[in-house]
Amino acid sequence: MLQSCSKSLFSSLSTFPQRSTPALTSLGAQRCRRWYSIHADHATERLLEIDPTRLSITKTTTPKELLAPKDLIFGHTFTDHMLSLEWTASDGWLAPRITPYQNLSLDPATCVFHYAFTAFEGMKAYKDSKGQCRIFRPDRNMRRLNKSAARIALPAFDGNAFIDLIGKLVKLDNHFIPSERGYSLYLRPTIIGTQRTLGVGPPGSALLYVIASPVGPYYPTGFKAVSLEATDYAVRAWPGGVGDMKLGANYAPCIVPQMQAASRGFHQNLWLFGEEEYITEVGTMNLFVAVKDPQTGEKELITAPLDGTILEGVTRDSVLELARERLVPKGWKVSERKYTMAELAKAAEEDRVLEVFGSGTAAVISPVRKISWKGNLVQCGLPDDVEVGPIAQQMKDWIEEIQYGDIDHPWSVVVS
Amino acid sequence: MLQSCSKSLFSSLSTFPQRSTPALTSLGAQRCRRWYSIHADHATERLLEIDPTRLSITKTTTPKELLAPKDLIFGHTFTDHMLSLEWTASDGWLAPRITPYQNLSLDPATCVFHYAFTAFEGMKAYKDSKGQCRIFRPDRNMRRLNKSAARIALPAFDGNAFIDLIGKLVKLDNHFIPSERGYSLYLRPTIIGTQRTLGVGPPGSALLYVIASPVGPYYPTGFKAVSLEATDYAVRAWPGGVGDMKLGANYAPCIVPQMQAASRGFHQNLWLFGEEEYITEVGTMNLFVAVKDPQTGEKELITAPLDGTILEGVTRDSVLELARERLVPKGWKVSERKYTMAELAKAAEEDRVLEVFGSGTAAVISPVRKISWKGNLVQCGLPDDVEVGPIAQQMKDWIEEIQYGDIDHPWSVVVS
Repeated sequence: MLQSCSKSLFSSLSTFPQRSTPALTSLGAQRCRRWYSIHADHATERLLEIDPTRLSITKTTTPKELLAPKDLIFGHTFTDHMLSLEWTASDGWLAPRITPYQNLSLDPATCVFHYAFTAFEGMKAYKDSKGQCRIFRPDRNMRRLNKSAARIALPAFDGNAFIDLIGKLVKLDNHFIPSERGYSLYLRPTIIGTQRTLGVGPPGSALLYVIASPVGPYYPTGFKAVSLEATDYAVRAWPGGVGDMKLGANYAPCIVPQMQAASRGFHQNLWLFGEEEYITEVGTMNLFVAVKDPQTGEKELITAPLDGTILEGVTRDSVLELARERLVPKGWKVSERKYTMAELAKAAEEDRVLEVFGSGTAAVISPVRKISWKGNLVQCGLPDDVEVGPIAQQMKDWIEEIQYGDIDHPWSVVVS
Repeated sequence: MLQSCSKSLFSSLSTFPQRSTPALTSLGAQRCRRWYSIHADHATERLLEIDPTRLSITKTTTPKELLAPKDLIFGHTFTDHMLSLEWTASDGWLAPRITPYQNLSLDPATCVFHYAFTAFEGMKAYKDSKGQCRIFRPDRNMRRLNKSAARIALPAFDGNAFIDLIGKLVKLDNHFIPSERGYSLYLRPTIIGTQRTLGVGPPGSALLYVIASPVGPYYPTGFKAVSLEATDYAVRAWPGGVGDMKLGANYAPCIVPQMQAASRGFHQNLWLFGEEEYITEVGTMNLFVAVKDPQTGEKELITAPLDGTILEGVTRDSVLELARERLVPKGWKVSERKYTMAELAKAAEEDRVLEVFGSGTAAVISPVRKISWKGNLVQCGLPDDVEVGPIAQQMKDWIEEIQYGDIDHPWSVVVS
């Protein structure tokens, strides 16, 4: 019975009746009553937790041909399978399923289409020299996805159980990950509200799913430093808002400023906040600034603090941890603190900017050449013929040797 | 060929191959190339505008049974048909279609699921005493939807052409609108991004659709004044943000504060802004406050100004216009200005609050009894045994006589 409901989202496997057939709709409504209500029917019963032992796997009968690694484009092609788990307010997490990659079939009244009940993660699986698959810091992604989901009234889940299931998807589709260095499998866990009524309230049902896209190196021919445009006419996030959550709601409103920046020749936009014009984050990355102190000459690596307006990037956290472990002993200061665009411009004028780089799952590290601000270009420390600074290069190397399992490190979790 | 692509979103009518079948996927990719790219293939060609003359209508063969009017719940049941229009960056607006109400079949990578590319409207159609269908101020909804869509890089459209098509849907399903006073057909125009790749950028394709839900009176047994909880721990909108747009992104993050308010016995939450604690708007309504001036005794009807943090409600605008036309001659002052929670509390203490009410499409007018703020209850002018103040009642009557066509008024558009 749960199975019948649970299949209803899937077009190709669906045994669920179309709603336009009254006789069947009535049957469907009866069988899937929980979809129509946010009230638990069995509130006194314990809700189901994610149970990996209940996983069912339906393998594709029509495996895709693999693309040549050089033809892979981020998020354009996906592996043969997907992982999905449905949740209902009355039952909790239903049995996990790995199925062929397929369309979702959703009522046009489904709340994700109207009220943006969506949160997601970006994470990557890598193939090490022994051919084992490794996932980078998945516990961080699970913690963040749970936090994001809670903020929009979507259900919590057991992160470890979900990691276990993601590992099974990665293993099943591991032949999609090219062995060459720089390649990986981008994993996109997503949770959406699936309640199919228009009242504005907590969804009574949800779908947690993972799709996987094989990706090549962000910079296939080596680093290319990017240029940014500081955005002061629009605001991404604010205190008391949801800018620290990985919600879909934080993304659509960022596209137009990004297009504006692109129209003037800049790769991404840099979000400033407040009259002080604090540097917050870049379109899809956190930002690090390395400067020299004007008095002492001390080197400082600075990134914006987690004050609720900054995405808590996993790569950001990795850079900070590595910097504290490996740069501080070399005399660096590492700071999570507010830093204004004016301070950066002044440091640039005084030739004290060592380098600036972004951090994120897609590129890992992305060096920045210059930032357009108030009609001026702030140079970020890179000589014209150099595409990456030493700290950015070092960080990328340190992180990648962990990601690819060149060294043993607790951040890299082997898929068993 | 366009038809094949355009059918791909619909599960029950779909002739579009599943993506898990390589041979067919390849065919699909070729036929529907525009779905995979945000670049226009024929940039030099003129993009298609919405063309109502190209409308195709596929009527249901299994009409739904009508519910008894008393059993109608807002947004729970829908009419037999839906209107949909697909847009692609290369072609523009494809031929409009009215089809049986049915699920959307979407790739799990579709951008609406990840980045909240969604904007919507709420509007209503009414049946007048002659049995004609009337829509209330649809031009306002079209203008706002275009503005919302533009802010998240979704395509613009010709509002008049779309109103024409919505009228055809209303006419086809008009038997779902009960003739009794207080009933109407809630219309939900929605636009979503349908690009099926994970890169964060402007969608190369979109779907504009309308579903319709017959609804009864918000207060079936007469007004019931609501109580609100002022929210100071979370912030809905910010200058430079998107709080004035009807984006899905503005809704999911509002649910938890609403649930918090409900858990303490309040019907909705009231969003305050800034250290000044300006009164902005209620969960799903704009807010009006009627107070007497402490010196002159002049009556003033106040609502928050459109500073970018307030939804530009159509009912809000209607209340303002009617108040300027009909209350100002009676000595009222009508103000769009900032007003703080402290000012309201002080006016309540001094017994100068005449009444407070919300305005929105669902309830039209919703009287407010009290507001919880900093541990105190601010009384909003209603005696204990009274559920609505005279201005709220008057506004509802004025607006409804226009909506139901009791009087001729340019705001009520007869569906021809």
